Amino acid sequence: MKRKRLSQDAYVAGIRAGNRRVLSQAITLIESKLATDRELAAKVIAACLPHTGGAFRIGITGSPGVGKSTFIDSFGTFLTELSLSVAVLAVDPSSQRTRGSILGDKTRMERLSRNERAFVRPSPAGSSLGGVAAHTRESLLLCEAAGFDCIIVETVGVGQSEIAVHSMVDFFLLLILPNAGDELQGIKKGIVEMADGLAVNKADGAYLNPARAAKASFSQALRLFPKDESGWKPRVLTCSALENQGIAEIWDMLQGYRQEMQASGYWTEKRSQQAVRWMEDRIRDRITDSFFGREDLRDLLDTYRAEVADNQRSPIQAADLLVKQWEESSGVGETGNSR
Amino acid sequence: MKRKRLSQDAYVAGIRAGNRRVLSQAITLIESKLATDRELAAKVIAACLPHTGGAFRIGITGSPGVGKSTFIDSFGTFLTELSLSVAVLAVDPSSQRTRGSILGDKTRMERLSRNERAFVRPSPAGSSLGGVAAHTRESLLLCEAAGFDCIIVETVGVGQSEIAVHSMVDFFLLLILPNAGDELQGIKKGIVEMADGLAVNKADGAYLNPARAAKASFSQALRLFPKDESGWKPRVLTCSALENQGIAEIWDMLQGYRQEMQASGYWTEKRSQQAVRWMEDRIRDRITDSFFGREDLRDLLDTYRAEVADNQRSPIQAADLLVKQWEESSGVGETGNSR
Repeated sequence: MKRKRLSQDAYVAGIRAGNRRVLSQAITLIESKLATDRELAAKVIAACLPHTGGAFRIGITGSPGVGKSTFIDSFGTFLTELSLSVAVLAVDPSSQRTRGSILGDKTRMERLSRNERAFVRPSPAGSSLGGVAAHTRESLLLCEAAGFDCIIVETVGVGQSEIAVHSMVDFFLLLILPNAGDELQGIKKGIVEMADGLAVNKADGAYLNPARAAKASFSQALRLFPKDESGWKPRVLTCSALENQGIAEIWDMLQGYRQEMQASGYWTEKRSQQAVRWMEDRIRDRITDSFFGREDLRDLLDTYRAEVADNQRSPIQAADLLVKQWEESSGVGETGNSR
Repeated sequence: MKRKRLSQDAYVAGIRAGNRRVLSQAITLIESKLATDRELAAKVIAACLPHTGGAFRIGITGSPGVGKSTFIDSFGTFLTELSLSVAVLAVDPSSQRTRGSILGDKTRMERLSRNERAFVRPSPAGSSLGGVAAHTRESLLLCEAAGFDCIIVETVGVGQSEIAVHSMVDFFLLLILPNAGDELQGIKKGIVEMADGLAVNKADGAYLNPARAAKASFSQALRLFPKDESGWKPRVLTCSALENQGIAEIWDMLQGYRQEMQASGYWTEKRSQQAVRWMEDRIRDRITDSFFGREDLRDLLDTYRAEVADNQRSPIQAADLLVKQWEESSGVGETGNSR
């Protein structure tokens, strides 16, 4: 079924005017697999690009159960009360399997999704993280062109998607629970070290003291870990999304980060580096996918995988044989590789 | 200049007999860029493969100045005193630039390099991390076939090489200094979370108390971070490589790890996973290198890099255009890619 499409100019004009319905349709266009849609999406993005860069791009992650939706609902609403406009996007390839959050996003953020200063977009559908993350990154640009002040990109915290989100945002916030340590089970190793800030959520009622203790423990722990090249020292705060406590302090931390990084020039530098890395990573992903998707290499690949796992074949030689086969059959090997 | 080569059988027999000179020549063969050498090396490795897997593969990293060489000298000597044989390899692509450690390795580990139960191999030369790391991984297999009980792989701790070493060893040990925190400057973020154990080195003289304090701080900090899927909890110990203190305790920790992981089956599972991942990563690296090394795409790549860095072009679309160009010019695109 071919859906109705607008013209390039209509998309761009609608987005630039902040029309939510057009923005939403343009994001659908980005997520489409149809070649004609992708061409049109590329033109729309190119036309919007000069108007991007103005938003504060905020990544938020944390284990399931940490209260991400409640937090974003509370934090986003807080921002709108400061007269700031907020867009919420998500990278969650796993939702493809359950379809849970795809349908659930809007109901998960009840207050925010009814707020006229906010735009909540459900997780894009897609089978590969690379694809889903790319759609989210381009949707982020359209939201910027639409004039949003803050763009929140949510991720589920249990896989590779944090790395993708980390590389498209200015500030990466990790939500944790008051029972220090245990709740990080499931979060990929290395993610805590990547965070620019931590917020101990559910700091209310009986959890208030444990939350303060967790804050102290994590603050101390983070001081021991490698410093960020920006010079920024990750901070740990407490909050209660449910009771709207500590939300202003988190916004203060983010604003402090932005001021400091803009003053040092790191803000712009990081965005440029992120963009170039996205390009290179996507090239890597796409040509790697084209290799691993090759019908003619699949049997050999499976055989070698089994032999390598069983210590019957050196992984390096298996790789080299496969690459040789690929070069010979596709003619890409002319430039050689002497490694 | 063509160097003298042995026959395949002579290499394999010499390695299997534990002949250090032949082992050394075989490693030189692995590091060679000559096509004929590489073919011969592949055969030697294939013949040795059934005799590999017996060693304890230990990765050691830490910032420059933490005392890695002194530690390996002391730790390796300790192992030889338990009648264990020890091979020391290194992944250090940066040494290519300074040539420092290539010439210096043997003198850096004075006691160990004179020890008849030890084999100390200088860092391989090579321009790319992928190449250097691949050589080290294959050299490790030859050392195993030569019957070494322990193989230590050293890395410098300031770049991507820790990830490569982490994925070829059973246990990854991070050395740190008593002045907790500061010395981690330069270590890539995420590395601390990857370590299976930490050793606070230079715990002697005036640094004894600071070292104990650092141990306590890091022990507490690591408890807050995500757990390993193996169920292993990273431990923190103190030692003085200079005074040979605490070395036995580190070996106890490693042995405890081995016993626990062998009992759970994780030991073998991890090695299989590491091997398959090596194969896949090397395929990725090689086909990516063949793309980024293409003369005909270089100008376009540079132009797009600059435009993307300058927010003049979407990184995703730049990547897609480059991949399209590559597919059309090399004919690899038949399988398509709908992402």
